[in-house]
Parts: sequence; C-alpha cells; structure tokens
Amino acid sequence: MTEQQSLEAIRYDHDHGQLKILNQLLLPSEYVYENVEGIEDGWQAIRQMKVRGAPAIAIVGMLSLAVELRSKSFTEMNEFDKFIRDSLEHLKTARPTAVNIFLACDLITKLIDNLIILGDEAVGVAKIEVIRHIEEMLHKDVESNKRIGSYGAEAILAKVPSKEKINVLTHCNTGSLATAGYGTALGVIRSLYGRDSIDRVFCTETRPYNQGSRLTAFELVHDGIPATLITDSMASLVMKKKDISAVVVGADRVLGNGDTANKIGTYQLAITAKYHKIPFYIAAPTTTIVLDDSKDIVIEERSHKEVTEIQGIPIAPSGINVYNPAFDVTPAELITGIITEVGVFSPSEMKSKLQTILNS
Amino acid sequence: MTEQQSLEAIRYDHDHGQLKILNQLLLPSEYVYENVEGIEDGWQAIRQMKVRGAPAIAIVGMLSLAVELRSKSFTEMNEFDKFIRDSLEHLKTARPTAVNIFLACDLITKLIDNLIILGDEAVGVAKIEVIRHIEEMLHKDVESNKRIGSYGAEAILAKVPSKEKINVLTHCNTGSLATAGYGTALGVIRSLYGRDSIDRVFCTETRPYNQGSRLTAFELVHDGIPATLITDSMASLVMKKKDISAVVVGADRVLGNGDTANKIGTYQLAITAKYHKIPFYIAAPTTTIVLDDSKDIVIEERSHKEVTEIQGIPIAPSGINVYNPAFDVTPAELITGIITEVGVFSPSEMKSKLQTILNS
Repeated sequence: MTEQQSLEAIRYDHDHGQLKILNQLLLPSEYVYENVEGIEDGWQAIRQMKVRGAPAIAIVGMLSLAVELRSKSFTEMNEFDKFIRDSLEHLKTARPTAVNIFLACDLITKLIDNLIILGDEAVGVAKIEVIRHIEEMLHKDVESNKRIGSYGAEAILAKVPSKEKINVLTHCNTGSLATAGYGTALGVIRSLYGRDSIDRVFCTETRPYNQGSRLTAFELVHDGIPATLITDSMASLVMKKKDISAVVVGADRVLGNGDTANKIGTYQLAITAKYHKIPFYIAAPTTTIVLDDSKDIVIEERSHKEVTEIQGIPIAPSGINVYNPAFDVTPAELITGIITEVGVFSPSEMKSKLQTILNS
Repeated sequence: MTEQQSLEAIRYDHDHGQLKILNQLLLPSEYVYENVEGIEDGWQAIRQMKVRGAPAIAIVGMLSLAVELRSKSFTEMNEFDKFIRDSLEHLKTARPTAVNIFLACDLITKLIDNLIILGDEAVGVAKIEVIRHIEEMLHKDVESNKRIGSYGAEAILAKVPSKEKINVLTHCNTGSLATAGYGTALGVIRSLYGRDSIDRVFCTETRPYNQGSRLTAFELVHDGIPATLITDSMASLVMKKKDISAVVVGADRVLGNGDTANKIGTYQLAITAKYHKIPFYIAAPTTTIVLDDSKDIVIEERSHKEVTEIQGIPIAPSGINVYNPAFDVTPAELITGIITEVGVFSPSEMKSKLQTILNS
C-alpha cells in the first residue's frame, strides 16, 4: 500500500479549488464521488449523511466554505465578515450534535475577529488567509492520524516477541471514511501494514449500523490489506483460535481516568480480550480526551429500526421491544493503552502525562 | 400465559389424524400454518427448512408417516413392513446432518422388527402401534422440555436472594419453534414466566442467521412475555446495567467434562457473564450429552453469504474474506450448571451423576 492509494472520504484539490466527497450512503454497492461546489452542497452532504464521522463532518463543512470563497470577490471587509459569519451559522445547523464542526467554526470566527481590523484594502488577503487556515485543518487532521498510526504500530509491535507478521482485530469504522484521511484505529492498522507487519485484520460487522461490514471492510478491500469480516459474536472465538496480537478501536470520548466511551460492543470486546490476555488499545486524538472526568457519560439510545430493519426490510417481529444504545463505556482496567498523536499512555498515567505535554 | 397459548412449530390433531406446521421461512413477516398430508409433504417441509431444529425435524418426519399411515390400510404384514422401511429411508434423505431423525427412524425400525412376527392378522394392530409410538415421541419431547423448564427455573430462583421478578438473557432460538414444543432454554424462561418470576427477557438477535430476532423474539411476543431484543454486541452492557440474574442458552452437544458446543456467540456470552458474576446455564436434554468426551468438537463453517447478505441484499463489499463458524465451544469453567430433564448439574459432577441416574 502507498499512501496515495488509501481510500478518501474527502478529495480536495488546492490548485483548482475543487472539493469532492465519497457518497457513503451508496456504500458498499456503489462507489461514487460527488462535487461539493459550495456551502449549500456541503450542508446537504452533512445533513444527508453522505459524509459522517465527526472529524470528517467538520472538514467537509469548512472546505465547502473555502471552495465558495474562492469563487467570490469582496471589496469591503464588512461584507466579507458578514458572509463568513452567516455561512458558519448555516453550516452549524446541518448536524446539531457533532461537536468538531462547532470547534472549527469557533476557530474561523476568532481568525475573522483579527482580520477585520486590517480594513477594506486587506479584504483580498483576508480571504486567502481564511482559505489557508481551512486547508491547514485538513492537513492537521491527517498528520495527527499519521502520528497516532505510527505510535500505535510501535506500541503494538513492542509487545510481540518475534518480528513476524501479526493478526489484529478492530471494531466499527475509524478509517479514512470517518476522518480527513488515514484514520485513528484503522490508521494504526495502516501503519502496521505499511511496515509489512500485518498478516490479517479481523473486522467486526458492528451491528446494528454495520459500520464494520459497510465501511471498514470496504476500506480494507480497497487498500488491499488482508482482512476477514466476522459478526460481533465471533470475536471471542477469533481471539481463541486466530492468534490475535492486539485489539485496537477508536473512541468517542476518553475521560481523564482512562474510561472510554466508544461504539456499542467495545466493552464486550475489552472483556473478552482481557480473558484471552490480548492487549486492548484505544486510538484517539487528544481532542477526544476530556481531562476533567467528573461528569458521567450519558449513553445515547437510537432508533429501534436500526435493529429491526435492514434497508427497510423487517428482520424482527412487530411488537418486540428494542434496546439500542449507540455506545458503551469501557472501564480503564480493561485498557492496555491509549494511543494519541503525542504518544501512547496507560490509563493510569495518561492524565498527568498529557497535562505535562499539552501545557509545555 | 397458559400452556395452550405457547407458539407451536407443530400442530398435531390425534382425533382427526391431521398435521400442520408453521412455515418458519415466512417469519417474522407472515404467520402461516401449512397442512402436512403425508410423507412427501413432511420431506419437503424439512428439506425446504419450513421446520428446523433437530428435535422438531425428527418429530415432523415421524408424524408425517403417522398421518399417511392413518389413511392407508394393509392386509399383509410384508406389505406394511416394506412401506414403513421405504418411508423411513426416504425421510432420512431430507436433511442428511440432523441426527435426531436417524435415532427416531431406528426406534421405529426396532418396533417393526418386533411387530412383523405377529403375522398378517395383526397388521391392523401393528399400524395402530406404530402411530401410538410416534405420538409418544411427540409427547415425550414436550414432557422432557417441561421438566428441563421446571428444574431450570428452580435452580435459577434458588440463587436469587429475594423472591422478586428477575431479568434473564438468552441467545439463539431454543423454543417451541426448535422442538416439539415448549423449548429447552426458552422452556426454562417459560417456566419462570409461568411462576410469575420474569420481569424481562433480553434476547440477542444472534447474527448471522438471526434466530434470535426472527424466531425467539417472535415466540416471546406471541406468548406475551415482556422481552427486549438487543444486538449480540450489547449483551455486556445489558449485563452491567439491567440487573440480569441468569443467562440461559441451549446446546448442540455437551461433552462429559461439561464443555459445550452451541450457537456461535455462546462462548462470548459465557466470558462476559463470568466477568459480571452472573450465573450461566446450559439447558439441554440428556440425549444431547455425550459422556464419552474423548473426541474433539469440529467447528462447522457456513456460507459467507449469511454474513454478507440479508435477504439477498449485499451488506458488505464484494471481495471481503469472511469467517463464519456456526458454533463455538464454551469451556466448562465458564458454566454454572447444565439443566437436563433429570436435574441440574455442575459441569464437574455431571458425568458421574448422569451415569448413576441413567443406569439405574
């Protein structure tokens, strides 16, 4: 695999100011890139879930603004300022719960606050500066993932006695399709594969939304990484029979004590990994880690139809009650290490080490 | 719930010699009983998997013979003998791997060996005797399940401090639809419900073949037992959050040392039940227990399409490798008790106690 071959949710061409996104609603049946020609296209792509994954949503929203800015010219700073602020407010309404796009909008708003004082003659420079800033977000997300990949691969291989190829197991989708590119847990797997250290990746289908079978399996086939799809209930048998060296998954939120909220099923995998004495890793950027861990993590429950229907076809009797929590919390005691872009930490040391690194 | 309300895979009317089976291929969308008017109908119903579950297959095959016998008259014992033997040979070819129908055919063959010596004048008596024997198989299977239910309910409730209602968790389908009626693990749940001891049953969907969502959920809704469907990956969160008093599942084979082969995912449930200190029970008739445990259990692998398609619709990319073992083996160390029609045994005591009981 070369880096260029890795699947992209987002294709951005700086030279021509063009943005295309992979329509993930059509996967795995169809593989279609669609043009995003401005803010309205960006808003629709996010709203309709053609692009998903909090980092990817933020990047597509901001890049759709960059694309529209390139086609526009402004003569007054007030006009520019109003256009940016209105655009950001609109983009924030596409998916009200994804936090990363709010953080990205805040960054652009702060930048604008500093630019408007330069006056009307600087409006052209201001436009270029905003575009440059947005492009930097794209590159930073990919760079952060690549560092996660590299640290993770080193940590996993350090625990493998020989230098032979290893088998790893992952859950849900944490790859190019959920981020600006490369991925978190799947970034670690890409890094291992780049070092010629992967014999086989086992990926769970990740019921009920099937991110594993629809998206992760798709990424692995696309990249040519040897991979085997299993149902979620097969993970323990695979751990027992298939010589798994590590389990690596992503995170929706990591608390300061190391407790980790992630896609439903992560907790079960962590319990069974411990039973089989297999190292269990969380891969997540430091922006996902909440060092103040005083708050409880609330478990979101989603539509019953995710469980009782597949593509509109009923697979359960009407009248059955359903429990459909979207994620669960894995206690720190089951986690070997948390892989970030600044290093790999055991849950017990993470908080103090991160405080030192991030404040230095 | 009264016993009459319990869902039946098989409806047999002794007085009119009529047999109907629930076409399980149509569940959960449609709920249709179809007439089985003789051996050919029985053979087709088994072959096409309108009825499944090894005990149910055996009973439907034999009852289809009983129904056909009622409509026939014989004058010579040789003619009767040939008809029975030909019918049994034909029924055995419907599903070559289900062992129970072979055992049932052997029993009828032995009966015939004893009857033919009575001579031609006894041919009418012989016919009635074969029908009576087959009807006895139906009742014995149901009676055996009811004893399993009763012993299981007592064992589970004995470990519950208060006499309040409890929550239990089950996997796959082990109910009326897999047996002659009532069920094994689901029979234990029916018995608990009959004692007014069930607050809620959690049933896993049981990927990839969805026996839990299609069949168990259907039985529970039908019987009005309060039930919640979950995906397989949610079981650990449910154990942590929903005050589960016991996990009870069926078995494809139990070895003398207590190691148990059952539907894929059972091993994972047993590991996570142990982590949460929840009793884990196997419910199975003694005919499922192989006291000679010298042989390894071979894990059958099934079609990749069970994982990559639902009702013909692709849910995974083409080109992905799949591992699809149909069952796994749960080691005795994870099992609290094995519930049989002659009592509940810990894995370590089962072999010696069963040898005493079955030889006495």
